[in-house]
Amino acid sequence: MQKVGDKGGAPIRVVPIRVVIDAMGGDYGPAETVKGALQGLQSHNIEVILVGDQQQVETELSRYDVGNSKVSVVPSVGKIGDDEHPLEGLRHKPKSSIMVATKLLKSGKADLLVSMGSTGASMASAVLVLGLMDGLERPCIGGPFLGLAPRTVLLDMGTNIDCRPQLMLSFATLGSVFAHKFLDIENPRIGLLSVGSEAAKGNRQVQETYSLLQESQLNFIGNVEGMDFFTGRADVIVCDGFVGNILMKFTEGFGTALSRFVEKRLASSLSPEDLAGVTSDLWQMTNMPRTMGGPLFGVNGAVMLGHGSCLAAGVAGAINTGVRCVQLGLVDSLREGLSQQHSETSIRVK
Amino acid sequence: MQKVGDKGGAPIRVVPIRVVIDAMGGDYGPAETVKGALQGLQSHNIEVILVGDQQQVETELSRYDVGNSKVSVVPSVGKIGDDEHPLEGLRHKPKSSIMVATKLLKSGKADLLVSMGSTGASMASAVLVLGLMDGLERPCIGGPFLGLAPRTVLLDMGTNIDCRPQLMLSFATLGSVFAHKFLDIENPRIGLLSVGSEAAKGNRQVQETYSLLQESQLNFIGNVEGMDFFTGRADVIVCDGFVGNILMKFTEGFGTALSRFVEKRLASSLSPEDLAGVTSDLWQMTNMPRTMGGPLFGVNGAVMLGHGSCLAAGVAGAINTGVRCVQLGLVDSLREGLSQQHSETSIRVK
Repeated sequence: MQKVGDKGGAPIRVVPIRVVIDAMGGDYGPAETVKGALQGLQSHNIEVILVGDQQQVETELSRYDVGNSKVSVVPSVGKIGDDEHPLEGLRHKPKSSIMVATKLLKSGKADLLVSMGSTGASMASAVLVLGLMDGLERPCIGGPFLGLAPRTVLLDMGTNIDCRPQLMLSFATLGSVFAHKFLDIENPRIGLLSVGSEAAKGNRQVQETYSLLQESQLNFIGNVEGMDFFTGRADVIVCDGFVGNILMKFTEGFGTALSRFVEKRLASSLSPEDLAGVTSDLWQMTNMPRTMGGPLFGVNGAVMLGHGSCLAAGVAGAINTGVRCVQLGLVDSLREGLSQQHSETSIRVK
Repeated sequence: MQKVGDKGGAPIRVVPIRVVIDAMGGDYGPAETVKGALQGLQSHNIEVILVGDQQQVETELSRYDVGNSKVSVVPSVGKIGDDEHPLEGLRHKPKSSIMVATKLLKSGKADLLVSMGSTGASMASAVLVLGLMDGLERPCIGGPFLGLAPRTVLLDMGTNIDCRPQLMLSFATLGSVFAHKFLDIENPRIGLLSVGSEAAKGNRQVQETYSLLQESQLNFIGNVEGMDFFTGRADVIVCDGFVGNILMKFTEGFGTALSRFVEKRLASSLSPEDLAGVTSDLWQMTNMPRTMGGPLFGVNGAVMLGHGSCLAAGVAGAINTGVRCVQLGLVDSLREGLSQQHSETSIRVK
């Protein structure tokens, strides 16, 4: 809880949100995570717990004038790399930074976990330590993923590869709650990603999901197509993690290739400063998850994942997003949403 | 056949390629198809047969100085719209432009069919009249689809939604032949679109296809990911039509949104002419199928499909692509490729 007492009209005393950060995570480790954490500290009323190799983290901290006591370091041993099998990694390295950090969240010593480390390890650790919300077999990843369409939420971005229709319905519920709370959209419009707008269009999975969504209490608007990420027809677009992951990586590659193209194309027409501004904006328009991170949906705790390639600004961006999710009580709302969905479904089944 | 005799060292006499065009197809009908056909006529040694409402087509023709006799008109009655069920449309309108045009190809009175009309109707008509190559249940669409990656071929772009692994193998074969013939790539590298490069990554369909591709004679390089459309790792990227269609439409929407963004972002930095040039280039980089069309793979005849929204330049672009396919004898090579694939598979099965 962040806000304490005010029922009698007394002024609200805002307790700082405690953010635990896997300082060893990400391609650049403590050099960027510590810097990013301190940037986050400047923008919010938070306390930061940095989990990692004590010496490395303290060396990084010593570069800055930290001043107050809002930063603490909790030591850990080892790190789980992108190339390791997540579950095996967790078993062999029980004191790894991600495990120690997740346990701090679980114990109530932190309100929010931010990780730039291996997505697989962060997920596995969250599932093991925090547990999944009822009715899910895996967590999922999602959120707005395009600067060009910052209010369009995509779920799942790659966690669940072969999805049953019931799970697709859960994505829709989680996305609807997120769009409502985080983007402040009343009754978010849910679109099912397919190859045509008619109900009969799509593969078997989509056709079966279509029926479930139609029977649900969600504001289902029917199938949407690839171009509808840009038309604003839907607030939440649902697909399985296979399609979502391909789209996300496609977009990243597209953005990078495009920035290079534009850089070359405009080299003789713009000043170097203007050119840098334009290419940076283009990159931003196409690489949103690298700048704001995204929640790990479906686990019993506030976990924010950032892109491994993030520099400090990306770490701070993920902290921003996470702090807002905590302030909004997102995890509780997501759990309520799923629980409501399940009771509706079981009523229909009865 | 386009080239006649030369075994004795005599000069090659090049017979014009006869291109039949569904003049009623596309969003703008004869106004653009006729104009585009005449543009195509200027660039190649071709004869053009325009199939459509005689009066409309002749009215359009009368706007131009056609001069020679390389253009003929074959009358048809009616047109099958995008909103019609293709097979029902063909049944109710046996003299529709697409049916008449396809029959001209079948009868040998034309070497190439170009259609900007309903993709469904063009496909259905081709399957009915020309027939499918052995081992396929449906034709497929593919080709390079990104100006940013003009030598990366994607198959299937949306014809086959639920695909068995054996069909995915056929896409790989067709793509390999196309990349070899059309893009002049020796032993094209085939990538299977998935969510990670390891063999175990991907949904069930991809995992099963992986094994088939590994056993095949194709130059299979393993799984590729969304960003690999831009890394040049593979010459041919194989996915089912569900994913391919979403990617293609996503790219179109992306390109349009991006052009708008860049137009606004650079409005104060560039002259109107330079700005128009840049946004046009950007559109071109992201909307390749609209400018060059693509072959309908797997039918027994050279059929080139263009985007419905094409203006004359797009029609001429599809003619260019088609003429090149005919000159290369693409249809025969595709048929041989599939036939070889099937004999390999049946040897393994025995």
